[in-house]
Amino acid sequence: MPLVRIDVQQGRTTEELRRIADTVQEVMLEVFDAPPRDRYQIITEHPVGHIIAEDTGLGFDRSPGVTVIQIFQQGRSEAQKKAAFAELALRLDKDCGIAPTDLIISVTANQREDWSFGLGRAQFLEGDL
Amino acid sequence: MPLVRIDVQQGRTTEELRRIADTVQEVMLEVFDAPPRDRYQIITEHPVGHIIAEDTGLGFDRSPGVTVIQIFQQGRSEAQKKAAFAELALRLDKDCGIAPTDLIISVTANQREDWSFGLGRAQFLEGDL
Amino acid sequence: MPLVRIDVQQGRTTEELRRIADTVQEVMLEVFDAPPRDRYQIITEHPVGHIIAEDTGLGFDRSPGVTVIQIFQQGRSEAQKKAAFAELALRLDKDCGIAPTDLIISVTANQREDWSFGLGRAQFLEGDL
Repeated sequence: MPLVRIDVQQGRTTEELRRIADTVQEVMLEVFDAPPRDRYQIITEHPVGHIIAEDTGLGFDRSPGVTVIQIFQQGRSEAQKKAAFAELALRLDKDCGIAPTDLIISVTANQREDWSFGLGRAQFLEGDL
Repeated sequence: MPLVRIDVQQGRTTEELRRIADTVQEVMLEVFDAPPRDRYQIITEHPVGHIIAEDTGLGFDRSPGVTVIQIFQQGRSEAQKKAAFAELALRLDKDCGIAPTDLIISVTANQREDWSFGLGRAQFLEGDL
Repeated sequence: MPLVRIDVQQGRTTEELRRIADTVQEVMLEVFDAPPRDRYQIITEHPVGHIIAEDTGLGFDRSPGVTVIQIFQQGRSEAQKKAAFAELALRLDKDCGIAPTDLIISVTANQREDWSFGLGRAQFLEGDL
C-alpha cells in the first residue's frame, strides 16, 4: 500500500516502462511515506487513442505520452499528496521524459482493514504491520 | 475529473470505441456537471470472457457487448448520479448500440485534494480551478 | 456489486483464468454476502513484469503468478473483509494453484447510490434491489 495503477499508451520500451515504475516508487518511498519494500504497481499499456485526456481549460496540450497514475491508499495527508504530485511531475520529467503537462494523478482512499498483502491476512489489523 | 474507466470486450472498431467514449463524455458535461474540456478517459478492451457479468437476479441477459463504466470523481450528488446513469443508458443505446441491459456503472468518490491534472499541481487546492 | 478487478500476468490458460474468477466469485457469495447472480468481474492479463509487487518487509517472495484482486463494494464489515481475505487465499491456493504469498487484495468502498447494474437505473435507490 499504496497500490498504484500506471496507465500509458504504447510506444515506450520495456526499460522505459520499468524506469517510470521505479521513479513512481521512489516518490512513494521518499515523499508518500511508504515503508521499505512497500511496492504494489500495475502497469497497463493501451493503444494510442485509448487514453483520452483534455485539460479542463488549464491550457495544456496532451501528447501521446500522456500518463495516468491512480493511487489507492489510506492515511496520507493533503500535504503529502501535494508534495507527491509535485515530485512525481519533477522526477518523471527529468528521469523518464514525461512532460509535466502529460501527467494526470488521482488518489483514492480506503481504510486499514481494506488491505491484504499476502497469506490472506489483513496485516494492518493483525499486528503484522 | 471525473476519471472514467471504460472496459469493454473485443469486437468493436476503433471508431465505435471512440463514439462510446465521446458519448460518455457528453453525459459527463451535460449531466454530471464536468466543466468544458474536463475529459479523462481510459478505454480497455478485453478478450471475450474476461468481463464476467451476471444480473443480481434482475432478469438481464448480458451479451458480449457488456460494458463497465467506472467513474472516479468527487462532489456529485445522488440526483446527479441517478441522472447520469439514466442518460448514459439512453445515449449509449441510441448512439452506440449498447443495450441498456449490458451497461454496468460504478462510481467512487474521493476529495478535491486527490487530483492533479498536470504540472504536478493540485489544481483544486491551488486556485487553478 | 462488488465489482472485482482481477489482475494477473500472462502464463495461465483460459480455463485457469476462468477457474480463478469462479473461485473469487464463490467467496463473494459465501463469505462476502453477495446475493445470487451478483457477479461483476474484469480479468486483465499483463505481460510478466507489469505487475511489480514487493512485500512491505513481510518476508514474501512473489512469483510470476502474483495476483492482485481489487474489490469495489459498499457495506461490508471489517469481519467480512478479514474472512474474505482468508478464504480467498485458501481457495485460490487449493483450487487454482495461486500461492498465498502471491495474493494481494485491496478493497474500496462507495455507497448504495453509486451503482447501476443495467437499464440506467440506480437499483439500490429505486427499490429494484
